[in-house]
Amino acid sequence: MSLCLQWFMAFSTGQICGRLDPGRRPHSWFMHDQFPHRAARWEVCPNLTLPLPTSVPGANVHELLKPLGEYFALWDIEEVSASLDAGQWARAGPGGGHLPLCFMQGLVQHKPSVLFIAHGESSTGVLQPLEGLGKLCHRHGCLLLVDAVASLGGAPIFMDQQEIDVLYSGSQKVLNAPPGSAPISFSERAREKILRRKTKPPSFYLDMAWLANYWGCDGEPRRYHHTAPINSFFSLREGLTMLVELGLETSWERHQANCAQLCQGLRDLGLELFVKEEKARLPTITTVRVPEGYDWRDITAFLMENHSIEIAGGLGPSVGKVLRIGLMGCNSTSGNVDSVLRALRDALARCHRSRL
Amino acid sequence: MSLCLQWFMAFSTGQICGRLDPGRRPHSWFMHDQFPHRAARWEVCPNLTLPLPTSVPGANVHELLKPLGEYFALWDIEEVSASLDAGQWARAGPGGGHLPLCFMQGLVQHKPSVLFIAHGESSTGVLQPLEGLGKLCHRHGCLLLVDAVASLGGAPIFMDQQEIDVLYSGSQKVLNAPPGSAPISFSERAREKILRRKTKPPSFYLDMAWLANYWGCDGEPRRYHHTAPINSFFSLREGLTMLVELGLETSWERHQANCAQLCQGLRDLGLELFVKEEKARLPTITTVRVPEGYDWRDITAFLMENHSIEIAGGLGPSVGKVLRIGLMGCNSTSGNVDSVLRALRDALARCHRSRL
Repeated sequence: MSLCLQWFMAFSTGQICGRLDPGRRPHSWFMHDQFPHRAARWEVCPNLTLPLPTSVPGANVHELLKPLGEYFALWDIEEVSASLDAGQWARAGPGGGHLPLCFMQGLVQHKPSVLFIAHGESSTGVLQPLEGLGKLCHRHGCLLLVDAVASLGGAPIFMDQQEIDVLYSGSQKVLNAPPGSAPISFSERAREKILRRKTKPPSFYLDMAWLANYWGCDGEPRRYHHTAPINSFFSLREGLTMLVELGLETSWERHQANCAQLCQGLRDLGLELFVKEEKARLPTITTVRVPEGYDWRDITAFLMENHSIEIAGGLGPSVGKVLRIGLMGCNSTSGNVDSVLRALRDALARCHRSRL
Repeated sequence: MSLCLQWFMAFSTGQICGRLDPGRRPHSWFMHDQFPHRAARWEVCPNLTLPLPTSVPGANVHELLKPLGEYFALWDIEEVSASLDAGQWARAGPGGGHLPLCFMQGLVQHKPSVLFIAHGESSTGVLQPLEGLGKLCHRHGCLLLVDAVASLGGAPIFMDQQEIDVLYSGSQKVLNAPPGSAPISFSERAREKILRRKTKPPSFYLDMAWLANYWGCDGEPRRYHHTAPINSFFSLREGLTMLVELGLETSWERHQANCAQLCQGLRDLGLELFVKEEKARLPTITTVRVPEGYDWRDITAFLMENHSIEIAGGLGPSVGKVLRIGLMGCNSTSGNVDSVLRALRDALARCHRSRL
């Protein structure tokens, strides 16, 4: 048992359908860093649990859905999420089936303990606005947990002002450090909830109270928890130092400017941006529809082989539909935008195109 | 629920009493690397669970105990562990109390699914013999899980011949790599047990079936699990390469020879080796009793300040009783033995000694 009986998750359908794909394991909609994966069982924030599809006791999880490439407005989350029409469900749902109506309800209906949402939705390239969301959650007695793996340092986020309760990221994106560590921060509300819990978290690995002690956060004598991966921490520290030296605002502006340059260049190539609203585009990952007649694998393989540039296809139901171009941290430069655009132009000219 | 309903653990009292110390969290007897810590909740080997001290469902754990500095014979494990006299319990147990009799029973009585034992017991400096243990476990329908964090590469271990089912180590000991990764290997028996389980492991993080797929062990198309800490893996690979180049047998002999040189030198200094039987001494970590009249902290601090050498005190009930000297991997050299002996001689001459 956990202190929290409900989680509440907001996803673009890209993610939830990734989960529901036959042949994929549950929770495979979690992406791109180690931390959210742990959330899928017992392991994120030791006072918050998620259910297993089995009889293992845990919390109830309700999911909010939006069509691929769209973001959530506050009313989507509070009352009823924007409905998908039957055609959208057919494309997004498992086997074309309909998802139960209860998936469409919001905070009012479900009274969750925690809302989880991704700030930078890297499978679709959506930047989820967070303004007012923390306040909304707190009005409904709910904590706000934000995944900023693909966005931290590349897009504005204000943990205190936006009343975010748990915020985590990954070392390997904008922060320019090797993969292996995930900075995480807790609001006073979240901290109190963790310290109030009466049972031990099932996960030793993410026993945050113990980890907080190990990190010297509680003023108590430090107790051994694990042998820390110090090389990872020093490299993360260096990445953060570089970000501070550059300046957060400068970094945000740079990512924004390079994203705008990339988007314009992609349009000039005749490609269609996947996220329609400019303000909803994640400055670190840009998605375009796979141009008609092409196989996305041909394009990504061509870029790798001929230009030593790695771009990605979609995830889950966006596979085959989008190409994802990440320009993060030290890779977010005007020169790199030019390089990827040149490479894409080359790919469009030389990759096989069906004439159907 | 898990496939395995019982764990069975063999500890020197050093470890179990570490656990029972007031003010310490349960399971704090796990030491020195990340992996065994996870075992303490749900997280080691996804088909094996450990109980929490709360109502969270899990397996029953029975513990076998031996006095500090001793190892287990096969009959200790099979039938009844060597009994501790009341005085020993008084020193070892919580508040001097007696531990329940059931703690003294073995495989015959408890019919566990898994036996967990440390090969290199780094809190006491004991090398646990493994000969015949795997066979014994299998005769009782039980898997054998071995912690070789402090021993792998420094002392002979033969996973297949000794019928070990799960063997893990840490990158940061004999293997000479930075901390952060833990090599782990499964026997066919263990693998089958993992693949037979019908429920999802509560830990996504240690979902071994998924990890095996991610590592390309199952011949299936690879599914994303996490962003791997590639730097850690490359450094571990380099550490293993160095070990192969040196030769496993040469490494074992070198650790053994340097340990013997150290033990002789310690005796020459008038110090008392903590592990009485020579064959039971861990070649990578040597323990001596804190010499009478000294405070162990004075000695470790003196070595650090004046000789830039770090040695450790005890853990749990051995705190204040032993000093632990680790010479592992590239640090296991005759020159380092000389250095630590010189430094200890200096410490014994210059640290405060009570005349009581």
